[in-house]
Amino acid sequence: MAMTGVLRPGHIQIRVLDLDEGVNFYSNVIGLRETGRDSQGRVYLKCWDEHDHHSVILCEAESPGMDFAGFRVLDLETLDTLEAKLNAYGLPTRRIPAGDLLETGERVRFTIPSGHQIELYAEKAKVGNGLGNIAPAPWAPERDKGMGPVHLDHFLLYGLNISEVRRIFTEVLGFRLTEQVLAPDGVSDQAVFLSCSHKPHDVAFVEYPELGKFHHASFLLETWEQVLRAGDIMSMNKVNVDIGPTRHGVTRGMTIYAWDPSGNRFETFCGGYFAYPDQETIIWPFEDFPQGLDYPQRKLHESFLTIVT
Amino acid sequence: MAMTGVLRPGHIQIRVLDLDEGVNFYSNVIGLRETGRDSQGRVYLKCWDEHDHHSVILCEAESPGMDFAGFRVLDLETLDTLEAKLNAYGLPTRRIPAGDLLETGERVRFTIPSGHQIELYAEKAKVGNGLGNIAPAPWAPERDKGMGPVHLDHFLLYGLNISEVRRIFTEVLGFRLTEQVLAPDGVSDQAVFLSCSHKPHDVAFVEYPELGKFHHASFLLETWEQVLRAGDIMSMNKVNVDIGPTRHGVTRGMTIYAWDPSGNRFETFCGGYFAYPDQETIIWPFEDFPQGLDYPQRKLHESFLTIVT
Amino acid sequence: MAMTGVLRPGHIQIRVLDLDEGVNFYSNVIGLRETGRDSQGRVYLKCWDEHDHHSVILCEAESPGMDFAGFRVLDLETLDTLEAKLNAYGLPTRRIPAGDLLETGERVRFTIPSGHQIELYAEKAKVGNGLGNIAPAPWAPERDKGMGPVHLDHFLLYGLNISEVRRIFTEVLGFRLTEQVLAPDGVSDQAVFLSCSHKPHDVAFVEYPELGKFHHASFLLETWEQVLRAGDIMSMNKVNVDIGPTRHGVTRGMTIYAWDPSGNRFETFCGGYFAYPDQETIIWPFEDFPQGLDYPQRKLHESFLTIVT
Amino acid sequence: MAMTGVLRPGHIQIRVLDLDEGVNFYSNVIGLRETGRDSQGRVYLKCWDEHDHHSVILCEAESPGMDFAGFRVLDLETLDTLEAKLNAYGLPTRRIPAGDLLETGERVRFTIPSGHQIELYAEKAKVGNGLGNIAPAPWAPERDKGMGPVHLDHFLLYGLNISEVRRIFTEVLGFRLTEQVLAPDGVSDQAVFLSCSHKPHDVAFVEYPELGKFHHASFLLETWEQVLRAGDIMSMNKVNVDIGPTRHGVTRGMTIYAWDPSGNRFETFCGGYFAYPDQETIIWPFEDFPQGLDYPQRKLHESFLTIVT
Repeated sequence: MAMTGVLRPGHIQIRVLDLDEGVNFYSNVIGLRETGRDSQGRVYLKCWDEHDHHSVILCEAESPGMDFAGFRVLDLETLDTLEAKLNAYGLPTRRIPAGDLLETGERVRFTIPSGHQIELYAEKAKVGNGLGNIAPAPWAPERDKGMGPVHLDHFLLYGLNISEVRRIFTEVLGFRLTEQVLAPDGVSDQAVFLSCSHKPHDVAFVEYPELGKFHHASFLLETWEQVLRAGDIMSMNKVNVDIGPTRHGVTRGMTIYAWDPSGNRFETFCGGYFAYPDQETIIWPFEDFPQGLDYPQRKLHESFLTIVT
Repeated sequence: MAMTGVLRPGHIQIRVLDLDEGVNFYSNVIGLRETGRDSQGRVYLKCWDEHDHHSVILCEAESPGMDFAGFRVLDLETLDTLEAKLNAYGLPTRRIPAGDLLETGERVRFTIPSGHQIELYAEKAKVGNGLGNIAPAPWAPERDKGMGPVHLDHFLLYGLNISEVRRIFTEVLGFRLTEQVLAPDGVSDQAVFLSCSHKPHDVAFVEYPELGKFHHASFLLETWEQVLRAGDIMSMNKVNVDIGPTRHGVTRGMTIYAWDPSGNRFETFCGGYFAYPDQETIIWPFEDFPQGLDYPQRKLHESFLTIVT
Repeated sequence: MAMTGVLRPGHIQIRVLDLDEGVNFYSNVIGLRETGRDSQGRVYLKCWDEHDHHSVILCEAESPGMDFAGFRVLDLETLDTLEAKLNAYGLPTRRIPAGDLLETGERVRFTIPSGHQIELYAEKAKVGNGLGNIAPAPWAPERDKGMGPVHLDHFLLYGLNISEVRRIFTEVLGFRLTEQVLAPDGVSDQAVFLSCSHKPHDVAFVEYPELGKFHHASFLLETWEQVLRAGDIMSMNKVNVDIGPTRHGVTRGMTIYAWDPSGNRFETFCGGYFAYPDQETIIWPFEDFPQGLDYPQRKLHESFLTIVT
Repeated sequence: MAMTGVLRPGHIQIRVLDLDEGVNFYSNVIGLRETGRDSQGRVYLKCWDEHDHHSVILCEAESPGMDFAGFRVLDLETLDTLEAKLNAYGLPTRRIPAGDLLETGERVRFTIPSGHQIELYAEKAKVGNGLGNIAPAPWAPERDKGMGPVHLDHFLLYGLNISEVRRIFTEVLGFRLTEQVLAPDGVSDQAVFLSCSHKPHDVAFVEYPELGKFHHASFLLETWEQVLRAGDIMSMNKVNVDIGPTRHGVTRGMTIYAWDPSGNRFETFCGGYFAYPDQETIIWPFEDFPQGLDYPQRKLHESFLTIVT
């Protein structure tokens, strides 16, 4: 197997202040498809081109934010191996039983030093992307619903100790550091971008003086034209836009950041280079971070650094 | 490491009838950059966004075609392991010494049952993509040269015994079978698409009654607009176009096939889905192959099946 | 008024063999909106961004083809003036009373030497594009229906005597000859492209040994990406595609030609340069017509020259 | 002739603080082609797809801004007629002799109540777009130079009395009011968008308490992808970007605003609907102007309203 270990960001549980409002937003504005509700009242959604049962779980809560983020691993053997490596590294884990999340097998949960709950799992029901696997069309009609994201792409999380988090992801979980923003001191990590594939990032962290904060979940769109369309749909729905449309210098991706009705930021995103394991890490000195964030404007938008949930 | 084993198609040696004509074509029409010439008279070229020393090697010969195709593996240990696995499988290998190709380490060469020479290597000099790794721009000015391909993406090879070839790539080299065209008998392989990444294919084979034939090398472009631009540049240079611009059903990619002045087919290509190891193989019954090849036209162009070098 | 006289192609009446099948096709596959039916059983449709009541009229008949094509003129005074000029030129006209077409004023009908029925009219009800004129959104949700054409763009008609037709359009109706394909004799007209705006063509004619033949009606799409999407939708609906996606050398537009279920060709099209009145006519010697038709392939597709309705 | 009177924005004379710096910027960063220099030291430039000798004239001065903007009219007879109409309306004109601008005929100059110098002319040498008029390619290689604008598209000017200016353009010069932003009083003009073609605007004015201010000259790009490329080139050249990439609600166009080294704003722009004479004027109440300016962000950027030269 040439792709091993952690395969991809598989799910995220997001807290919304009003469940109906949240479900309507993620379904009809962003364009996800609801695939189930559980006895706790959580709502499960997926992007049209995802095969797994869900990638976004919404739960109603008194404050917005992220409860946990999960990564799918190759198989049960990998799950055991990675759990053992985490424990050996000194990170305690606990097993959440299969079925706690709908259609999902056992999950290995642990808390990283940035204060986030991360989990690994090897099993989740395949519901397919609606195209079947016999002579499939290139896209399903639901691509036209809302912004029509292809898949959940990555998360950006804010918290303490991100250098320690980086070590866990690279030394234990097999991610690579694709890009790195240096703090003003020129030495420590301001932001780290981590890949378990040849995407430029599957997860990223920014150093921040509070534990466990959520910056955004990113949804992949196919093209820059679809990013424009997403921006139009945001405006038609009076969505609060943070930044964009623009290009990131970091990852080369094209982006819009906006907020859901509960104040959770999300990203609609396309593009980015192929990041192979034998490529050097790209370094952004702090003074170059403005063009890393907003390449055309070379501007370090204040909101990007300060507003999290 | 979440990407292991074979990383990517790394180089291809193509025979051209007139070296100067070929170098001019690959440099100025396709838009590669020449990075060296060796004592045998071979010319080395790379795409603008590749970091390795070269991906295309041109040599003058009396007939067109491909001499060999090479895949970069993660490291020397992987090279040894894969060689041992090939030998254990019953495939003899030989080591070609470092330096036989410019700036390239030792290569493990073997012949597959389709008649093609394939090789693995772990070392090739990094020359970079011209952007450096400190706060890089998203692209280099040479992107505007010729068709401006990003990287060498995959090869399609024609020959005998492709089911046996498929087994070698999946069971020995760790590739996955992402898509498969069935022969008219509904059982045997007409075409197999193999990935060692989450690209829809890194190499593909079509069953054909002659050993060792070359169908095309594919160059990645960034967008469908760049595919159009490539088509314009082909016409401006009176390049013989085979098929396209169009969309493939297979891989969902957008494509133009055309021929170099020696009659070797090449592809300029963009798009395609994310192919993860836990996805089912996509099956194309032979009667659906027309839309697999040319999705809008649903047409099995005769030239695609019959013209190879 | 800087735009005077004839404003644009305003409507076309197309014969279909089965009305329900035709209405379903133009509504759900091409993506027009039905706006009415009249007592003759004709069905009226419009593109989403058109303001006038209709642009396509379907009527059931025993053979496919075009009954007539109409152009909207600036106002009633212009209508009278142009009618007088046509009569003075020697072309008889007749008035078709207001209301013969739904929501449409009086039409001035005449037969041109190529055998086509052409009409001018100054009045048709405005139904709007669904956006209103107060702070409108940039597009309406129905843009996502079918191929989502913006407007009816132009017609291509085949018949005899197109040099004479050209004189009528340029000398009487105020069109300009933007592009011209020369016949193999190097002197006479093989095809003429005529504009009453700064579009590269609002109508075009090809010399052909039968009177009054219909080649295609063209629908404007916004982008090359939308042309690809149209091609995908054609395949999903098993539409017979003639040519494309590709770029025309003539007009520089990007195109797909396909056939409706009755065998009438239509085009989905985007792009093209700004054609101002002070620009020289572009000339295509017959031997360059292949790249005029299909720029990347430089191919004079036989079907383009021979299949008409 | 269906397009009569004023054809298009034909040239603009822009004051730059350092001529060499300005010429380098407009040539190599924006991507215009220098076509001449005159005895006053002025430098003439054109976009690649313009046929006329020049569209931008740079002159060195102590303060930035616009000296005058000129519109090409159909012919000398039109020039005389429009001059007579201007005089009859009460606007004095003066004739600037042929040759004062290189390769340009006599110009009719007048001052409008907003304080801007406007001129009309009927003659300027055709130098072509480099493609010829026999079987031309769809674009010239110089399209890849800098941002590669297609043509000078429109101007936005700030000054007093724009309602009076609107009357002159509509009642005397034959423009139409395509869009209008209302002042906070809900009645008077905050901004007027005027077309002499079926472009959404050929010139626009914003009410402002100083006479004769210059907001921007706009250069047309072909696609949203080219707008992104322009933004990348701005950043690579450390150009100060004002707003964008984004979509305007007004005109539906896609845009980036930025400043030349002297502080003159320019726009790179694509898209926009077809504006025919029989379409209603689009109205933007002042409270909706934010989405008129920046549709996704719904934001009335302060700089847009206050920074002019």
